[in-house]
Amino acid sequence: MRLRDLGEFELIDRIRRLAARVQGRDVVLGIGDDAALLRPRRGEQLVVTSDAMVEGTHFRWGGETPRMLGRRALAANLSDLAAMGSRPMGFLFALAAPPSLEVRSVTGVVRGMLDLAEPFACPLVGGNVTRARETSITITALGGVRPGRILMRSGARPGDRILVTGKLGLSALERARGRVRTTPRPRVTEGLALARLASVTACIDISDGLLADLGHLLEASGVGAEIDASLVPMPRGFAAACKRLERDPLQLALGGGEDYELIFTASGNTPDSPALERRLGTAVTAIGRITERGLRVRGASGGSPGWRHF
Amino acid sequence: MRLRDLGEFELIDRIRRLAARVQGRDVVLGIGDDAALLRPRRGEQLVVTSDAMVEGTHFRWGGETPRMLGRRALAANLSDLAAMGSRPMGFLFALAAPPSLEVRSVTGVVRGMLDLAEPFACPLVGGNVTRARETSITITALGGVRPGRILMRSGARPGDRILVTGKLGLSALERARGRVRTTPRPRVTEGLALARLASVTACIDISDGLLADLGHLLEASGVGAEIDASLVPMPRGFAAACKRLERDPLQLALGGGEDYELIFTASGNTPDSPALERRLGTAVTAIGRITERGLRVRGASGGSPGWRHF
Repeated sequence: MRLRDLGEFELIDRIRRLAARVQGRDVVLGIGDDAALLRPRRGEQLVVTSDAMVEGTHFRWGGETPRMLGRRALAANLSDLAAMGSRPMGFLFALAAPPSLEVRSVTGVVRGMLDLAEPFACPLVGGNVTRARETSITITALGGVRPGRILMRSGARPGDRILVTGKLGLSALERARGRVRTTPRPRVTEGLALARLASVTACIDISDGLLADLGHLLEASGVGAEIDASLVPMPRGFAAACKRLERDPLQLALGGGEDYELIFTASGNTPDSPALERRLGTAVTAIGRITERGLRVRGASGGSPGWRHF
Repeated sequence: MRLRDLGEFELIDRIRRLAARVQGRDVVLGIGDDAALLRPRRGEQLVVTSDAMVEGTHFRWGGETPRMLGRRALAANLSDLAAMGSRPMGFLFALAAPPSLEVRSVTGVVRGMLDLAEPFACPLVGGNVTRARETSITITALGGVRPGRILMRSGARPGDRILVTGKLGLSALERARGRVRTTPRPRVTEGLALARLASVTACIDISDGLLADLGHLLEASGVGAEIDASLVPMPRGFAAACKRLERDPLQLALGGGEDYELIFTASGNTPDSPALERRLGTAVTAIGRITERGLRVRGASGGSPGWRHF
């Protein structure tokens, strides 16, 4: 069955019934009125972020299952909430799609979103459905955060260590292989843990790639950085897999996007990486230092250390 | 200059500079970080709504100026906030557009949004920019509302009067003429005034047309309605203008969308229409009553009253 056979209101009703699977404590009114209604917790501020995936630009039907696509679309948004140290409250899903699109493609996308949303108790509370020639999925995610516990891009100071959660490059490798199989789980709980540490000075998530996103953090903070490329954490077997594809592992790990790990900076009195790992429950690796200006990467290519300027 | 010549980050920077024109008291952090940060007022709940306009479906470049388009795109969202009786806090703008689009088309759209946002002190706080084959504009608007003062679609009871703000049909007439010149101002202040009246039982804004949107209200409330078509308020000179286009004025007034007036229902102890008009500062017209079930419209065609069943 196609969207044109179902109609707008029946489609919304199907989405509403699917959405019932994930409930949130902060929702007063979900899908069905002119707007959704949320109840922020006492003293919390509100974090809001929007991200879109467009057919032909970010995905193609057949390149991955609708369920994977939905998961990936929401991941970008939850990762933004994580980077602010905020607690997910809910999300809106605005769909533009051609009338010829299969209904099960849309319900698959919704199921994928809900798969990812469920462990974070982040319900689908509203959105929009409209006709278009190409499909696009625009998500707006909402989170709550206590005023003293907000992570921002600004705040990094010279001398701060630069750390990163998890391993980098896997999403880029999958794209290089032409198949998307996994979506990293956004670092929501890790972001909340980091926000409780006063020594964490700045944070951003890796959506465009380590160097690009670190660049945004540096710009917002008005500082520079030195990165040691040999310290950049990569998944087990990553170098060998890259070699088979004749790709440079470091290039994928530094430049590949959609890792949804967090880059954060920390002043002198932060716990060291093993202590941070215990607190966050995930791998944390120090990869460099904040400097006065510029972004310099100590390359590991050919075993000869040297400085490259970006 | 086209978007491809400017690049994503320079475009975002231009939008950010334009957005500075409209400030909001509730914004902690606007465009520039991973997400925007808002501070809801004490005890307020949060209203969130999303709406999209897609090239070829809702607009075409050249059919109206970018500035009018931007105004119209935001109007739909602010009208949803109005229908909930909420105070606008800010909005997000997600743009998908081809690289060949003129930069001034985008800045025009943003200026149009800000024109409408300014009197409501509703700042542009974030969004997204991405490449697509066709342009689409997705807006998410955020509002604050006190828990006891929320207007919903549900709540209408048999016997309630049905009232409507302003005049209906002008947007439909402009579309019938093939030129869009005006965008109705969303009834934000009127919605806030209605939310303070305990006797107002339900509310919805007219985006799809009086009958369609009243239908949504009836469905949400589990009731029916009788409308007297001869009471439906139309603009001065509307009937004559419709006649010149050989269009039925009543059809445009009942079925035309994008009026962005409010339909609301009120129980017996509401002030009468003149008193409501003074309180709202705008025209208010009683057009019918809530019944147990069904939607019946007493037609005025040919001067012979009669009941039509929809």
